[in-house]
Order: sequence, then structure tokens, then C-alpha cells
Amino acid sequence: MYRSNTCGELRLADAGKEVTLAGWVQRVRKMGGMTFADIRDRYGITQVVFNDDLDAELNEQANHLGREYVVQVTGKVAERSSKNPNLPTGDIELIASKLRVLNPSEVPPFTIEDDTDGGDDIRMKYRYLDLRRGAVRRNIELRHRMTMEVRRYLDSKGFLEIETPMLVGSTPEGARDFVVPSRMNQGQFYALPQSPQTLKQLLMVSGMDRYFQIVKCFRDEDLRADRQPEFTQIDCEMSFVEQDDIINLFEGMAKHLFKELRGVELTEPFQRMPWADAMRLYGSDKPDLRFGMEFVELMDVLKGSGFSVFDNAAYIGGINAKGAASYTRKQLDQLTEFVKRPQIGAKGMVYARVEPDGTVKSSVDKFYSQEKLQELKKAMNAEPGDLILILSGDDAMRTRKQLCELRLEMGNQLGLRDKNKFACLWVVDFPMFEWSEEEQRLMAMHHPFTHPKDEDIPLLDTKPEEVRADAYDMVVNGVEVGGGSIRIHDSELQAKMFEILGFTPEKAQEQFGFLMNAFKYGAPPHGGLAYGLDRWVSLFAGLDSIRDCIAFPKNNSGRDVMLDAPAPLDQKQLDELSIAIVQPEK
Amino acid sequence: MYRSNTCGELRLADAGKEVTLAGWVQRVRKMGGMTFADIRDRYGITQVVFNDDLDAELNEQANHLGREYVVQVTGKVAERSSKNPNLPTGDIELIASKLRVLNPSEVPPFTIEDDTDGGDDIRMKYRYLDLRRGAVRRNIELRHRMTMEVRRYLDSKGFLEIETPMLVGSTPEGARDFVVPSRMNQGQFYALPQSPQTLKQLLMVSGMDRYFQIVKCFRDEDLRADRQPEFTQIDCEMSFVEQDDIINLFEGMAKHLFKELRGVELTEPFQRMPWADAMRLYGSDKPDLRFGMEFVELMDVLKGSGFSVFDNAAYIGGINAKGAASYTRKQLDQLTEFVKRPQIGAKGMVYARVEPDGTVKSSVDKFYSQEKLQELKKAMNAEPGDLILILSGDDAMRTRKQLCELRLEMGNQLGLRDKNKFACLWVVDFPMFEWSEEEQRLMAMHHPFTHPKDEDIPLLDTKPEEVRADAYDMVVNGVEVGGGSIRIHDSELQAKMFEILGFTPEKAQEQFGFLMNAFKYGAPPHGGLAYGLDRWVSLFAGLDSIRDCIAFPKNNSGRDVMLDAPAPLDQKQLDELSIAIVQPEK
Repeated sequence: MYRSNTCGELRLADAGKEVTLAGWVQRVRKMGGMTFADIRDRYGITQVVFNDDLDAELNEQANHLGREYVVQVTGKVAERSSKNPNLPTGDIELIASKLRVLNPSEVPPFTIEDDTDGGDDIRMKYRYLDLRRGAVRRNIELRHRMTMEVRRYLDSKGFLEIETPMLVGSTPEGARDFVVPSRMNQGQFYALPQSPQTLKQLLMVSGMDRYFQIVKCFRDEDLRADRQPEFTQIDCEMSFVEQDDIINLFEGMAKHLFKELRGVELTEPFQRMPWADAMRLYGSDKPDLRFGMEFVELMDVLKGSGFSVFDNAAYIGGINAKGAASYTRKQLDQLTEFVKRPQIGAKGMVYARVEPDGTVKSSVDKFYSQEKLQELKKAMNAEPGDLILILSGDDAMRTRKQLCELRLEMGNQLGLRDKNKFACLWVVDFPMFEWSEEEQRLMAMHHPFTHPKDEDIPLLDTKPEEVRADAYDMVVNGVEVGGGSIRIHDSELQAKMFEILGFTPEKAQEQFGFLMNAFKYGAPPHGGLAYGLDRWVSLFAGLDSIRDCIAFPKNNSGRDVMLDAPAPLDQKQLDELSIAIVQPEK
Repeated sequence: MYRSNTCGELRLADAGKEVTLAGWVQRVRKMGGMTFADIRDRYGITQVVFNDDLDAELNEQANHLGREYVVQVTGKVAERSSKNPNLPTGDIELIASKLRVLNPSEVPPFTIEDDTDGGDDIRMKYRYLDLRRGAVRRNIELRHRMTMEVRRYLDSKGFLEIETPMLVGSTPEGARDFVVPSRMNQGQFYALPQSPQTLKQLLMVSGMDRYFQIVKCFRDEDLRADRQPEFTQIDCEMSFVEQDDIINLFEGMAKHLFKELRGVELTEPFQRMPWADAMRLYGSDKPDLRFGMEFVELMDVLKGSGFSVFDNAAYIGGINAKGAASYTRKQLDQLTEFVKRPQIGAKGMVYARVEPDGTVKSSVDKFYSQEKLQELKKAMNAEPGDLILILSGDDAMRTRKQLCELRLEMGNQLGLRDKNKFACLWVVDFPMFEWSEEEQRLMAMHHPFTHPKDEDIPLLDTKPEEVRADAYDMVVNGVEVGGGSIRIHDSELQAKMFEILGFTPEKAQEQFGFLMNAFKYGAPPHGGLAYGLDRWVSLFAGLDSIRDCIAFPKNNSGRDVMLDAPAPLDQKQLDELSIAIVQPEK
């Protein structure tokens, strides 16, 4: 070992000991005949002192140290005269007697500090330097602790971690696959798994009973801010269970993680909210319940007063922003601009303030009597000082989603979304199908293996769009951290499901024959869930994006700018694989 | 839950309890008015009794159960009259009062027993049924326990598990990459990692200090018996360490695993054997030390007696098969055939028996006097009853490898390779380079990032073929379970290494520029090791192949016969990726 101790462990009790540290030079300060160097490693920072009076040559050598040099220093631990209470090692310093430069460093392209001067692009190009910053390193450490705790918990519950293959078959249903040409089977391709869904179901057929895996999954989608082409899932499946068994077990796991990793004790059972309520009250299947501001439907109150926008609307809904009546005209205009942005797409916004005397002052006063507005106030449960914000539209679902964005924005503006507060719930009773305008057919809302609610099975033939599924999502602070379902374990019901989804029997057999065949040999009732590890970690770390909890993330074009991948292949490699690049037509 | 207990947990103390079990029907026996059904799950087997006297209808129902039906049975636990001492639940049985068929099963294509009647091909096609067999399931359980213990151990030593990306850049050095066409970067490809080697080195540059990962790796090679295109590595790296630090830590891990998983306490330090000795004494860089039978070089003894085969040989070596003098002529002929097989390629074999009276009787008696043969006996340290086997050839290294095969075969024949005995060692001081006849240049024996021994660095310019590396392999029972090295952390030394390996500076920059650049910003001294998880598990499980410790393995053509992958892609998918299949010329 190049060191006797790490840079984070020396304390006052160690004073007098001769030790050797190794690490990076965080900074060097000259003060008179002395040089102070902060030496950093993963575990902390220790101040090292070089003194002209003790060893002039050594001090001279220390003067030539640059930022991020790798050094090995031997010396004696001494109590500091001016202690630094912000540093665990702040009571001591190391009086150096020996210094060895293990590796010099060029000047790094940005500062290695929690608040760096480096922009996103340069940080990603030099990610190996970015990871030296405590702010990033702590996320990676948290990620490690989280996977350790997940494994410990699931192992204690009898789960087996079983690796499923990465080179599987392509299933065009769902998102786009990344594919891998096979050299030994020319003209054929593997796919990288979007999830081990069918494989974990086969493991249930094989009697493994309780399976989990922390596993990389792949989706070739156009990347939005918070998506990566490869991401990590905590993938779980259990046999002989009903929905409640799964919810209870994984709620237990979530509580364990909150306690171990954030010191938060969640003692109450998580709220369970039917999907229909979540949409009605929050316009979202992942409502942020850190704050209220539920939607109030105002069709009865506001229709029929001659305001044509409302009179023609299929939906009118309002939220009560408590205490926000002081919003200025300018702030209200900005909110209107916010909801009119193309990403949200509302046509406009109506507002109403409750004045200190209880009267209501709205942006549509000319259409509504004060009496009507008092009705509105009552419906919204509003008090003096409150601000009522109202959206309407032709499409109830679309308008609710717009109102959802407005609610979240108001939550932000009013400081109601504290990153250190956690509101967890289960959204349950999802619809089995949703209509795809693009494909002009019903699509599975979760996936085609989801079990319909027993009581809704008769509706499969008559009103499939009303069938609810034994599906559930865990939502924390408006983020879907995981979701799953009870699966179909009957090959006939599975075949029927494929039929409703527009598969011909041949196509279903071609793509999922292995699963339907497996179901013929004694498939147990089973169900499961998958958590998004990246989301969990970023939630616990208080990050806005998943990117900084991933050691080497890709950018929005799917590129690793540090490795400069992807890249063209040698012709020899293409030839071996029997593939050619087709130049796209301009 | 569909059950109150598993099929493995009920004991005599539970007698009288009303319980519900769920599982698969292992077998059904009718005896008079009673039906006995063995119900199986992952945890065990419980006997269930249906009785005409108690419930004739239920008994009739039980009579229709088939093998592998999934059932739920409720009943009362009772003491058995004839206990089964071979079964943990053998003291009790369940007197059924309720039976529900959760899913019927077609007759499985092979028996679900430890000794199945299913051949390899059908077992792989129906792997989900094969995994129900205890013999296979136990390997999967062992694999889970092993990864848990590895993580527990490394976590306790301060290692962080850090995920490195699966979509990286292709590096034509080494084995062939699997590649992944990028849709968003048309004409460009990712590669799947052959190992996270360079990424873990970057993590050391980033100060992560102690990294590990249990990670899938990929190699597109023509598959031999014990290779899979995707395999799992326990990948580790440490900073500020020397070779001894790594060897000590990972020897500690190996001992921990032996103790926890096999109940074997290895108290002595593992032997460390220089590569040159391993080759000289065992003709292998992974000698099986469960038995001796070291090579004895016989050039001095056997040359110059007129036997032209030996007189012209570049190497003559023998092994002493203790107590095998009783081998018949037929057995000796078979050994000769064995070494002459094309896979081994020896020209012939010479043998010499030591008779009870101490005289030596050899297959080349006409060339050697009894005096010479006594010299041979002495050199071989042979006693009456021993059998001396001798190979010779023009190429010392090749002959040693042939003699190695003969030694291992004799070990097998003499029962010296007990699967429950473990002989562990470190092979150290590997050569840095080996000459490639195919490429007509020096190749890195481990990989291009391996650090040469400090004392051998001056030889890099003059006699690179004599340079030894700070590289080490852990070998157990003749299997290389892991290996690693101290890495180069100096960009100039790394550049020199690439030069010796025949890279132009441009090519080196193109392929490994990111690493050499990283080394400019303060790379710490570092080194590491990777274990092959599949090999470790199969070693502990006593398997001959790694295949049965993998849930869903591929066959020798790289196919998953269960999923029927790889497979042709839809034209639409090819178009989106801008690639085309080139028909190979016939």
C-alpha cells in the first residue's frame, strides 16, 4: 500500500503518529516560510504542512505542486492551531517529512469543487475528472449503498438474484430495440432486452418462486431530458401472490430504503389511489402529493353564463393556490404564457382572486355575477387571500394534463415541493388498454402480459376499453419510481389478449410462442414489479436529472462524448458480420 | 398469498395445524382408497394424502391430477405412519380437505427429476422446465449466494459497486466485439464491452479508489465447450496498491467464499508460483495442484543413446504415475492414442515400468541399458510399482503442453482429481508479451495496460520478449478462476507499450486516446483483478461445464434455442438503422 491511512480518517487522537497519505492535491497555499497543501482522496481531505524551518528543500518541492498532482506524503500528525470545524479532519494537520510525486497533472479543464466552473459538455467529456467532485461522487456512493440495501432486503425475503441473458430476441411491440448482428448466424440479429419481462415470467414457470435482478435494460428511443438509452432496473417477480402481497412487500422495501439511506421513517401505509381518481384530481398518473391543490371540476358552476369559452368546453377545472392572491398582473400573465407554451398547449387561463373582504375579483368578471363568483369560491373552498386558476378545453383528458402542469408550476412557485419531504403512494386500477391514434388500435397500457381484474374479464369481449388491470405504480413526489402487475398465467387468456391487441395468432406465436408454450406446462399465478434504479437514486440524492447518478451517462444524442462512441466500424468488421451501411437518401 | 407455508418447511412440530400449500405435482400414487400426491416447490416436497373415506369426491379429483399440474391444497398436518428419512418433511404428510387446480399441465417432454431422461437439446429448448429440476436449481441458488457473499465481502472492504456502460466503443485489439448499430448516429456502432477494463481504470483516475462490479461481458468468438458469448465477471480495481495488496485482498475473498459456500477453511496462504515454473513443472499456466506428478526434464538422462527420437528432441520430459505399473498393454496403447489425438498432437509416448524387483522395463529397452534405465528411475524418483511416461518433441513449449494433457488424464484415471478437494495457487510473473505467429508481432499476454515489472523496464527496448509483468492469475484445481495485474498509470509508458505492440501513435490515440489523455490529469498507481463468476460457480457446484450454472445459456452456435434468438429482423428495423444484409458469396 502506498498509504497507512486515508485522507479522511485522521483525528486529534492520532496526534503524534507517523503516517503516510496518498491522494490528489486539492490546493496549495504559501504563507511566509510555510506551504499548506490540501490532499484529497475519496474519503476526505487532510491539510499537509511543509515548513522552511524544518526542511527548506522539501518546502521548495511542495511549492511546485500543482492542482490534481498525485502525491504520497509521510509525516507526523499534529494538532492544528486554527481548527476547521467544517472538516472531519479539521482538528489536525500533517507535518510533512517526505513528499513523493506519484504522477503530475496538467491543469484540469475545470475546477474540482462541488460548485465547479465547468459546463455540462466539458464535464461529460472529462467525466473522470468530474467524478472527483464530491457532489458527483456522493451520488455514486449512494447508488452503491442503495443496491446493497436492495439486495440485502430481497435476499432476506427469500428472493434469488438470477441473471437473464442480454442477447435475446427482438420484439417489435413496445419501444424500439437495440439490435446486435450475429456473425455465427448471418443475417440474424439479437436484441438487447428492454426489460427481462418474459424471462422473469419463465423463471416463475420454472418454479424459482421469488426472483430479482438489478439489471441493465435498453431502449432505442429519441432521448428526452431524463432518459438514457441504457438504464438500470430493479426487476422483481413472485409466484403464488395477489396484488396486495406484492404491494406490501415492495412497500416494505421502499420503507427500508428510506430509513437506511435517508433516515426517514415512514410508518403509515402508503395511500392507494385508483388511476381514475389520480387523473380526476391531479390530471396525472403520478401525482405529486407533497401538496394538495386538487382539481375541482367547475362545469356546473361556470357553464351557461354566456362565456363561450366555458360554455363550449368539454371540461372546466380549477385549482386553489392558497395565499397567492397577491400575484401581480405580470405574474399572472407569465402563468398564462406558461400554460400556452406549445409543450403544454392550453388556449388561455382564467383567474379569480379572493379579496380580503371575501369578494371575488376575476379575469372574466363581465360574464359572471358576484353571486356566481361566490359559488365558485365555495366550490373551490377558497378564502380571502387565495388565487383560483382555471383551465378549460374540448378534450377533458388533455385539459387535465394542462392543469396538472399548472398545478406543479404553482407548487414550485409557492415552495411546496421540498426535496427533503417525501410523499409516496400507489396508483392502482390502471386501464388495461389505451387507444393509439397513431396505430388506430388498442395498445396495452402496461404490457400485453398484464392480468385484467377478474371482475372486468367479461368486459374484454364487449367493452375492452373499460377493462381495468391488476397493475400498480409506486409514485414518490410525482415521480414514477416503479410499477408492475399481476401477470396472465393462462395461455388462453394470453392468446385472447394478443387478439385484442391486433396480433394474428401466427404473429403472436412467432413473437411470444416460447411464453405461451411455457404456460402449457404448469405456470403458477405470478406477478411482479420493476423499480427504476436511476430514478430512485436521483430522488434520494435530490437531483433534477438521472444523469448525475450514473457514472458514465450518454448525452441526448445517445453519445458517450468521453469515449467518443458510437463510431464507424472497420470494413473488416462489417464484412465479418455480412452487413453494409446504407446511405440514407438526402 | 396462495399458501400459508412452503412445501419445504413443515415438520412434526406442525402436526395438527391447518395449512395451505401451493406447488407442482411431482407424482401421484393410488393405493387402495387413498391417493398420495407429492407437491413440490422451490423449497421442498410435501406428501399430500387424499382419502376416499374422508372425501370421495376430493379423492376422485386428486386421481385426475397429472405431473406438473399447479395446485393449491388445504389440509391438516399429520404425523406419517411410515416416515421418509430422506426428506426434510418426511415425518409428516398433509391430510387434504381442499384441492384447487391453479393450472393444468401437458405432459412435460422429460422427467422433472435430478436424473432426467431429457437430452441436452430438449432440456435447453424447455429450459424453464429443466430449471425445475433440483440439480439445476441448486446451481442457480448457489450462484445467488455467491454474488451475495462477494458483495458483502467487498462492501466490507470499502469497495463501491459502480455500473459501467454496456454501449461503449469498439476496440479491435483482442477478441471480436459484438456491435450495436446506432439509429441516432447513422453509420456508427456501439460495441458491447469485452470487459470494463479501460472504464475501471478511468474510475481509478476519478479517485473512486476501490471499485467492483459483477457485470456481463461479451466476446464474439467461435465457441468452445466452456465458453459463452455473454459471461459474467467479478471485476475489481484498487488504487495506491502494489501486487501483494491485491493478492492478499482477493485471496481473503476466495477464502471467505470457500468457507461460506463450501464450508472449507483454507488457513494457509496460497502458494505463489512463477509462470516459468508452472510451465516447466506442469506445462500449464493453470496447473492442477490437487496432485503432484511434476514434470522431470530428461534431456541429460536420455539423450545420446542412439534413440533418434530423443536424440533429435528439443525437449524430453517425463511424469511418474505412482503405482500405475500395473497398466496393461492395452491401457498403455490407449494412452498413446490419447496423446496422438490431433487436439494434443504428440508423435508418440514412451513408457517405463518399475518392476517389483526394482528393475525398469521400458518400451525403448533396445536403446537403453538397464543402467541408463536405473538413472531414469532415479531422476524420476520412481519406486517399484510406478509407471514413467515420457514425451518428447522439437518444440519444448508444445511438448510440455502435451505432457500437461497426459498428466491431467493420468490424474483422472488414478482418481487424483477429487471435486471436493481444492488446490488454490497464484501464478505470478507472467511474460509481458507473447509472439503471435499469425500477426507476426508481439502481443500483450494479458492486455496492453499491464505494468511491466520495474526491474524489467530497461529490457523493453532491448529484449521485450524477456520482460515480465506485474500480472497474476488465481488458479483452483487447474481452472483459471481470475486474473489481473498492476496497470500502467503513466501516459508515456503506456504510449511506449502501444508502440511495442505495433500501434502507430495515431492508431493508439484513436482507440485509447481517452485513456492516455486521462492519465495526464493525475492517474494514481492502480491495479486489479477479474474473476469469472461462471467458472467459480461451476467449480463450487462440481460441474464440468459452466452451462448449468447459467439460467438461460446459449448453445455452441451462440443460439438461445428456447427464445429462438438470434432471428431475422423486419425490413423496417433494418431501414431505421440504415443497414442492409450482404449475402455472403457462395
